[in-house]
Amino acid sequence: MSQTYQPQGNKRLEDKNARARMLISCPDKAGIVAAVSQFLYEQGANIVQSDQYTMDPEGGMFFMRIEFDLQELEQRLPTLQEDFTRVADRFSMRWSIFRAARRKRIAVFVSKEDHCLMELLWQWQSGDLDADISMVISNHEEMRGVVESFGIPYHYVPVTPDTKAEAEKKQRELTAGKADLIVLARYMQIVSPKFIEQYHNRIINIHHSFLPAFVGGKPYQQAYHRGVKLIGATAHYVTEELDGGPIIEQDIQRVSHRDNVAELKRIGRHIERIVLARAVKWHVEDRLLVYQNKTVVFV
Amino acid sequence: MSQTYQPQGNKRLEDKNARARMLISCPDKAGIVAAVSQFLYEQGANIVQSDQYTMDPEGGMFFMRIEFDLQELEQRLPTLQEDFTRVADRFSMRWSIFRAARRKRIAVFVSKEDHCLMELLWQWQSGDLDADISMVISNHEEMRGVVESFGIPYHYVPVTPDTKAEAEKKQRELTAGKADLIVLARYMQIVSPKFIEQYHNRIINIHHSFLPAFVGGKPYQQAYHRGVKLIGATAHYVTEELDGGPIIEQDIQRVSHRDNVAELKRIGRHIERIVLARAVKWHVEDRLLVYQNKTVVFV
Amino acid sequence: MSQTYQPQGNKRLEDKNARARMLISCPDKAGIVAAVSQFLYEQGANIVQSDQYTMDPEGGMFFMRIEFDLQELEQRLPTLQEDFTRVADRFSMRWSIFRAARRKRIAVFVSKEDHCLMELLWQWQSGDLDADISMVISNHEEMRGVVESFGIPYHYVPVTPDTKAEAEKKQRELTAGKADLIVLARYMQIVSPKFIEQYHNRIINIHHSFLPAFVGGKPYQQAYHRGVKLIGATAHYVTEELDGGPIIEQDIQRVSHRDNVAELKRIGRHIERIVLARAVKWHVEDRLLVYQNKTVVFV
Amino acid sequence: MSQTYQPQGNKRLEDKNARARMLISCPDKAGIVAAVSQFLYEQGANIVQSDQYTMDPEGGMFFMRIEFDLQELEQRLPTLQEDFTRVADRFSMRWSIFRAARRKRIAVFVSKEDHCLMELLWQWQSGDLDADISMVISNHEEMRGVVESFGIPYHYVPVTPDTKAEAEKKQRELTAGKADLIVLARYMQIVSPKFIEQYHNRIINIHHSFLPAFVGGKPYQQAYHRGVKLIGATAHYVTEELDGGPIIEQDIQRVSHRDNVAELKRIGRHIERIVLARAVKWHVEDRLLVYQNKTVVFV
Repeated sequence: MSQTYQPQGNKRLEDKNARARMLISCPDKAGIVAAVSQFLYEQGANIVQSDQYTMDPEGGMFFMRIEFDLQELEQRLPTLQEDFTRVADRFSMRWSIFRAARRKRIAVFVSKEDHCLMELLWQWQSGDLDADISMVISNHEEMRGVVESFGIPYHYVPVTPDTKAEAEKKQRELTAGKADLIVLARYMQIVSPKFIEQYHNRIINIHHSFLPAFVGGKPYQQAYHRGVKLIGATAHYVTEELDGGPIIEQDIQRVSHRDNVAELKRIGRHIERIVLARAVKWHVEDRLLVYQNKTVVFV
Repeated sequence: MSQTYQPQGNKRLEDKNARARMLISCPDKAGIVAAVSQFLYEQGANIVQSDQYTMDPEGGMFFMRIEFDLQELEQRLPTLQEDFTRVADRFSMRWSIFRAARRKRIAVFVSKEDHCLMELLWQWQSGDLDADISMVISNHEEMRGVVESFGIPYHYVPVTPDTKAEAEKKQRELTAGKADLIVLARYMQIVSPKFIEQYHNRIINIHHSFLPAFVGGKPYQQAYHRGVKLIGATAHYVTEELDGGPIIEQDIQRVSHRDNVAELKRIGRHIERIVLARAVKWHVEDRLLVYQNKTVVFV
Repeated sequence: MSQTYQPQGNKRLEDKNARARMLISCPDKAGIVAAVSQFLYEQGANIVQSDQYTMDPEGGMFFMRIEFDLQELEQRLPTLQEDFTRVADRFSMRWSIFRAARRKRIAVFVSKEDHCLMELLWQWQSGDLDADISMVISNHEEMRGVVESFGIPYHYVPVTPDTKAEAEKKQRELTAGKADLIVLARYMQIVSPKFIEQYHNRIINIHHSFLPAFVGGKPYQQAYHRGVKLIGATAHYVTEELDGGPIIEQDIQRVSHRDNVAELKRIGRHIERIVLARAVKWHVEDRLLVYQNKTVVFV
Repeated sequence: MSQTYQPQGNKRLEDKNARARMLISCPDKAGIVAAVSQFLYEQGANIVQSDQYTMDPEGGMFFMRIEFDLQELEQRLPTLQEDFTRVADRFSMRWSIFRAARRKRIAVFVSKEDHCLMELLWQWQSGDLDADISMVISNHEEMRGVVESFGIPYHYVPVTPDTKAEAEKKQRELTAGKADLIVLARYMQIVSPKFIEQYHNRIINIHHSFLPAFVGGKPYQQAYHRGVKLIGATAHYVTEELDGGPIIEQDIQRVSHRDNVAELKRIGRHIERIVLARAVKWHVEDRLLVYQNKTVVFV
């Protein structure tokens, strides 16, 4: 349907060829900022933004995110990375450098509820999501039309208790080399440990409650019966522990005794899509670090 | 495109044939609630919800919204309305009764920014907006594809300084008998006093600032230069005074010095679509009364 | 210290002698609103505000709050209540009528953390809390000075594992006939089932987390380790189930990875005092009904 | 009254003798971060936190806040500052270094409304406000008792049209050498340009509306008549332009048609005290930079 609806996913794409983002975590020690910034200066890079967080100044962990501009970044990056190992080794750093111009590719998994998917599509086409949605995978056929109208491939991979292994094999083939991030946009199937391991801290799920309240199924029913005055949603990285992975973002909205379960779901859908989209945005802009099952969010 | 994307605008439509909504405003006086509820009781109606607000108990105004269920409502409504005039006359009431099953028809006006329109379409197709979008009118062609993919008629009515009168004539012909509510979803043209009069308190506009701050054009630039820490949006009924009509809903989001004008606009778009959709929802559910350029909102 | 600090608890006390508040709950049935409003009209009362909520229109429960003005209320109330039994019996109502001029008396229980107590004292002296704080009971001596400077009696009732029964006996003697509401303003002792029974739905506790997340002790430590992005507080009526009583109010605030446990506690204190004060305000204004371990909040 | 109420203003004072905060603003240029962090490293300082913001990367302004620890800070600071001039000159920096252990002294100005003052006193005594309240100056006598009960000097300086100049002379004498920050906590008198100049970007005022809406007097009346759905408060530095100085912090709360002017004021008081306290906290923790009538807030 691309002739009827022009995807405008890159309409606000600036010339970001020079822009890089660097994420660092290491044990805290004097001189880290000096060493990193000195290194970048000598390379001719200009630091555009830098954020730093030291967990427990005495003997704790150090986390840093730096955005810098460097001319001819793409060509020079391999050498720069090689040279940086000397700095990194000195401080026992875990680190990565990402080119802003290399947009991450997202595979969205969805079941029957479309609101989270629609929000991602909408933000993508309006240029608010600086990434590519490379495919949508669903265990239902319902959303093929709308997804294809955005010019995005749609893969129907049915899942039954018997075909679980086969389905996952299919999903892994489809995403192999084509997805940097998996987004579970109300995908109601369990993802296998193998898949989680392959996409370590690269699978984002939206849980329809304010975790850790209402872990597990039917959280809106649980919320209704407990008579809470706020309902929420939680975006988190998927780990093997159900609903137990590192929380990326949460938000809530006020509800009242007037809201029955259906109304809680309606309100909840709006929170879910906002919270998930925010988490995805932060991930694709390299704003997230994970340490000890918690996220450091540089915004 | 309706074959690719099934509009589901009524997927959560319950059997509301018995449900009515009554709005009343009159000078306050003892006995109003008794008279109205007694009348409804005698008709065999069951009050499902009632809200009341008295502005200034001594000699002020009284406002009321009642939802009630009555069997065979459609057939019985004309008689009920006739009978009610006795109660209404006794208290000098202005009043209306709406059948919930008679969904309001909305004509959405839009220019080039699509986020408010998309939100309305999305809420409509997900069943959250209990109304029909009967048409979209735009002074641009851009959104024809997406609108028609929802199965909704799209009318391109260009507006130039020379063709202004003619364009409005066209708009009035298109909406005549086909729209109960006009929604200006970031429609960047001025609507004429004649049109405003015809749709008195039935044209909703979204203003991209927290009114009355930043009246007029380019509010995000104004907000940026003033260095505000929150930006907002305001949905209001359109009156002849620019940005001066009764405010229906407002909301804000926190911003910081890091947000440039483009970022303020991006954040603002999210507030605008939420605020406008909420105002439209309240209008079509007959939750709004206007008095002295202010709204009474029964939620 | 009353000579140095003039308590102004009643500085905004209007002439409320005529104002009454009525709370009703009963099985839903046609004609309730008509019967009640007709009754009040015949008594010469003027309904100032009325709110109604029907849980599940078909065969559900009906809840109502009415504020009305009636001249010579105090003298006429006994007769009015007697007369109302006819209406009440017809609909199997549970109901109460409260005179606004008869301010509820609050006994505040506190341990070592003073923020919730201070907020209540401040709101009381500024006239925002339409009630009397008749006494403060504490298992510590620390806050005697500040409490007495507001002209409020302070009772030190130490609690040890051995003196528990004796301490509670003392508390019950102190509050007997002098407290309509018990507020546990960060009181760190368990209240006995006997006391809870005596003050059924009249003991409000502030729990320092967003229930049902982080039930039990040290919720801020729990929140820190789970890495939540919002922390909250919950005001609830006390029942025998720890942290399981009907929720009255909740609120949250955004936190980040930068906030350690001490900072979470600091932020939490601000939420706790606001949430508790709001719940107390609603209770003393007769805005709360409890049904099936949930609150109906008429605001 | 210090015997009855123990001020605990420093109860959470850690050993901060080694902690310094540095604020820098200068034209952007490559190498700033490297130069500053290298300088600090060579001095033996450990960077605990650093935040940076570049307004418009190409040819814009650069702002930075660094917290660092340095042993024997007090003795070494003069030399360190002298040495830093070489770095500062190279980049044309405006800069300051503050010792965290040297708490800022606040003079609070107040008229008759006590809520903002009470909040500051409460936050101060609970250890949340890392500063000293060195005095309270008022044009009324009302709050002497409560202020003195906190052990804080209270100065009554009446202001009439005739005694304006004299009153200000008195205020300047009282604050001379004893106040680093002036907080106008609902002080209803105009401060002279001379005083503003002397305390450039060191006078914080709380305006009882969401600026720039409702500039000037009686903002709650204005808000009521405009029928806004949110009311707010704004803390800003005082400049010669009335309500026109750099905004530090703003917040809002939802209101409805039910809220009359008195109720708006009551709600407003809660927002005012929270917003003002937040702004003061940020100032005394050296988190604010002013540029072109806007604040950069490092939180």
